[in-house]
Amino acid sequence: MDPVRIIEIKKSVFESNEKDADNLRKELKDRGVFLLNLMSSPGSGKTTTLIRTINLLKEKVRIAVMEADIDSDVDAVKIKEATGIPSIQLHTGGMCHLDAEMTRQGLDALDLGEVDLAILENVGNLVCPAEFDTGSVKNAMILSVPEGDDKPLKYPLMFSICDVVLINKTDVLPYFDFDIEKCRENIRMRNPSAKVIPVCARTGEGIDVFAQWLLEQVNAWKQ
Amino acid sequence: MDPVRIIEIKKSVFESNEKDADNLRKELKDRGVFLLNLMSSPGSGKTTTLIRTINLLKEKVRIAVMEADIDSDVDAVKIKEATGIPSIQLHTGGMCHLDAEMTRQGLDALDLGEVDLAILENVGNLVCPAEFDTGSVKNAMILSVPEGDDKPLKYPLMFSICDVVLINKTDVLPYFDFDIEKCRENIRMRNPSAKVIPVCARTGEGIDVFAQWLLEQVNAWKQ
Repeated sequence: MDPVRIIEIKKSVFESNEKDADNLRKELKDRGVFLLNLMSSPGSGKTTTLIRTINLLKEKVRIAVMEADIDSDVDAVKIKEATGIPSIQLHTGGMCHLDAEMTRQGLDALDLGEVDLAILENVGNLVCPAEFDTGSVKNAMILSVPEGDDKPLKYPLMFSICDVVLINKTDVLPYFDFDIEKCRENIRMRNPSAKVIPVCARTGEGIDVFAQWLLEQVNAWKQ
Repeated sequence: MDPVRIIEIKKSVFESNEKDADNLRKELKDRGVFLLNLMSSPGSGKTTTLIRTINLLKEKVRIAVMEADIDSDVDAVKIKEATGIPSIQLHTGGMCHLDAEMTRQGLDALDLGEVDLAILENVGNLVCPAEFDTGSVKNAMILSVPEGDDKPLKYPLMFSICDVVLINKTDVLPYFDFDIEKCRENIRMRNPSAKVIPVCARTGEGIDVFAQWLLEQVNAWKQ
């Protein structure tokens, strides 16, 4: 069989927002606010994971959440109802990602004097959000078991920019052809220093490990 | 509880490629080539669904596939090995979607005189591909059960532009909180005329319904 043909389509040039992002990070450092950028595909369990994590941490640090979505406010409502913490919805008007300037619009709407940990739930998308530094201190992503263990091969940039990868929905491992060790290996190929944590947001399994990691990051940032 | 705050972030303006897309469609009509644009989230089962569909149709119509991916050629190789039909990989170099001009670059690499049905497997993404008309005759999308029945609420544009929505991975319905009727209702809200077909690409269930629909579309287009 002949090798498959590969057509290289030219890439469009995005405006750089790196400077904006660095400035935002500096401001956040000065104000003692840690910003986590959480990314994933649609339906990977970002909101459920956040609710579990927030409920483990909310007595230890002051948290606020920004839920980015193209439309609807389902997620921000869910977070607020399930955790009681401040939660706002960012409507992107069809846009597929948030950059630093857009993230700042969200942060400006929060009362940052009362916040140690601000969490941005980015738009459900493995492509565009990876291209834009939001000004976050750390990037986290969720890969859920039904999506397949080959995703680090297909969405390299996303995996390469994340400090932590949660492998979610481990409760359905028996029903899918997903190999956790192979997945770890695929992630390592893209990003040897990424921390990989298997979790099940539905049952709560493993969320304590992620919460502990996050708490350490917040405390380190505030020093 | 106070209502959740909603911050409207301004939308960036994309260059219109509608004219390009209309021209491409006209050319395809003249040449008797039907172009299907297949979209979904990462890991929803586009490639497996295509393999099943192609194997049902390949004796009836001449098919070629363009697999768009940011990186890797896993999918084009899989299609070629499992079906024997011409399959090429389009590398988007990090880009999150294909527009009509990019699709044309792919079509130019196929031998269209030998093709009745060209299938574009778009980048795994529920946001950006919906914004760009590829010049396709029909748009199809796959929503898989693990992603949740609320996705039409969160990704309205994608559902509104699709002629057919496949609900895939119905074999794992018992393990997820996914209500097919509620999902149909959510899809109808976005797009009353979309055809909804539950399928299981792994077992092949329901794929015949989709294949039959597709065959009818191709035959109607070639008249």
